[in-house]
Amino acid sequence: MHILITGAAGMIGRKLTARLVKDGGLNGQTIDKLTLTDVVAAEKPAGFAGKVDISTGDLAAPGAAEKLIAEKPEFIFHLAGVVSGEAEIDFDKGYHVNLDGTRALLEAIRLAGDAYKPKMVFTSSIAVYGAPFPYAIPDDFHLTPLTSYGTQKAISELLLADYVRRGFLDGVGIRLPTICVRPGKPNKAASGFFSGIIREPLAGHEAILPVADTVRHTHASPRAAVGFLIHAAGLTREQMGPRVSLAMPGVCCTVAEQIESLTRIAGPKVAARIKREPDELVMRIVAGWSERIDAKRAAALGFTAEANFDEIIRAHIEDELDGRIA
Amino acid sequence: MHILITGAAGMIGRKLTARLVKDGGLNGQTIDKLTLTDVVAAEKPAGFAGKVDISTGDLAAPGAAEKLIAEKPEFIFHLAGVVSGEAEIDFDKGYHVNLDGTRALLEAIRLAGDAYKPKMVFTSSIAVYGAPFPYAIPDDFHLTPLTSYGTQKAISELLLADYVRRGFLDGVGIRLPTICVRPGKPNKAASGFFSGIIREPLAGHEAILPVADTVRHTHASPRAAVGFLIHAAGLTREQMGPRVSLAMPGVCCTVAEQIESLTRIAGPKVAARIKREPDELVMRIVAGWSERIDAKRAAALGFTAEANFDEIIRAHIEDELDGRIA
Repeated sequence: MHILITGAAGMIGRKLTARLVKDGGLNGQTIDKLTLTDVVAAEKPAGFAGKVDISTGDLAAPGAAEKLIAEKPEFIFHLAGVVSGEAEIDFDKGYHVNLDGTRALLEAIRLAGDAYKPKMVFTSSIAVYGAPFPYAIPDDFHLTPLTSYGTQKAISELLLADYVRRGFLDGVGIRLPTICVRPGKPNKAASGFFSGIIREPLAGHEAILPVADTVRHTHASPRAAVGFLIHAAGLTREQMGPRVSLAMPGVCCTVAEQIESLTRIAGPKVAARIKREPDELVMRIVAGWSERIDAKRAAALGFTAEANFDEIIRAHIEDELDGRIA
Repeated sequence: MHILITGAAGMIGRKLTARLVKDGGLNGQTIDKLTLTDVVAAEKPAGFAGKVDISTGDLAAPGAAEKLIAEKPEFIFHLAGVVSGEAEIDFDKGYHVNLDGTRALLEAIRLAGDAYKPKMVFTSSIAVYGAPFPYAIPDDFHLTPLTSYGTQKAISELLLADYVRRGFLDGVGIRLPTICVRPGKPNKAASGFFSGIIREPLAGHEAILPVADTVRHTHASPRAAVGFLIHAAGLTREQMGPRVSLAMPGVCCTVAEQIESLTRIAGPKVAARIKREPDELVMRIVAGWSERIDAKRAAALGFTAEANFDEIIRAHIEDELDGRIA
């Protein structure tokens, strides 16, 4: 089996690649080739016996998508995209990468000929939803995004559904919740503190909490996100029906509950590294976000996330810190 | 005021133009120029004192949209599009006209400079909804189109909402119900019989009814559709909020009730011109359509359609038949 991964150099892309290499197969088929593409070069995965093609480039550039599918990969994980904040600041870039890139890939598949019909898993986002929200967002909540990023993801979902309906490919779109604990350096994303208040104290650093302890949000670990991708890959057209995109599960908890978990697992000395510095702007942005995702359909289809925030912290300690707390 | 109408040569475009010329103004401002564009030349409206520019072309062609807004029309009615059946048969043409055309127009507006910020009314469609449906479709029903046409309209709604949110223009998208009684020749659209069973008997011709009398649907007259466009033109950004597209009201009735209206207004001899010839294909297509649209938000915003199907037939007799029944 030949698998193409777009956005392969990103955090989820790297973890997905590692998981595929470790598993050696997907849906019961041996993986003999990986094509990894992104705007920067992905690392060659260690310990993979099959072929690896690594390429860099703009998926929306003329001919780029055609080239990526020239060898007709049977499976495509389409993760490429610019993030929410960047798509809001740079209107052209957001539409170019998140909309035109996805459409170019779908068009290349449609026009490939030879009855080419790959399967695709596409990463959408809960940013497709826009306030006002009900108590919990059900599977049939309408998509009224309030960011350009959410708009581009919602449009990509519509395109995917139509291309699947027309028989050009099989596909599933998964709406990821906030990924926590996100590894790496602190960033300026408004959502960054959800990860920061866990990651930084565990690494021995201070972290800023800019919102109230009562803020509630839904989280899934990077490990769970990779699990969603693998599970989505195994779903059939019949299981999905015409509504090919769906929300993923996660752990719904308050910031206070996040901190209680951290205290339970790493002790009060570590939790004391969180400094409360209320930030009006961040508070206002976060107030417009969904709190609870009622991912009934995902649960019925067998998607699983962590059961509680303790498990999310433990996954981070195992996967990123080799089990060690600073 | 300078008004641009795309799709001006179509049925709704012609009626809208006539109404604007008759009114002489829009939102209390005198109309001094009309730019009418379509793939075929619109007729020059009779009795209009202002300037008229008539152009033909493909809105999605490079430079076409820029040219249309070069004089910065204050108001745009964006009606252009290929219909449902054609968009399903010709995948490329549907996306080119219905998606790329709309996006080209929005992009030309965004990039026009000089703080240009026109107001747009865009005609969407109830084809943005897809089965399975609730008893009646509420304003917050999710958009899960089951045709490429519906997909293109849903994507255009998302684009419009994002461009409005970003401040590039003001805009309202109106989801038209089935237009009935559609004037002109019978066509092969699966929905054609809804108009055919009224229009043809009134003109002295036989009409085929391919479905059961119990089929229920929601209709609005061409006159009502033009009324929706004019009313939408007067709504403010504040009235619309972030959800700028909404379903229009209509008359919800069964085919039997349509025929009862025809009998009441034109007599049993006219109604007897309807021949029942069940058609499995049409029955199957129509079974997937929405029956009831609960257009609460439109009602609250002051949109009005006919109160019953008798009024729809009377509007047709007045507007198309000069009051005469054959």
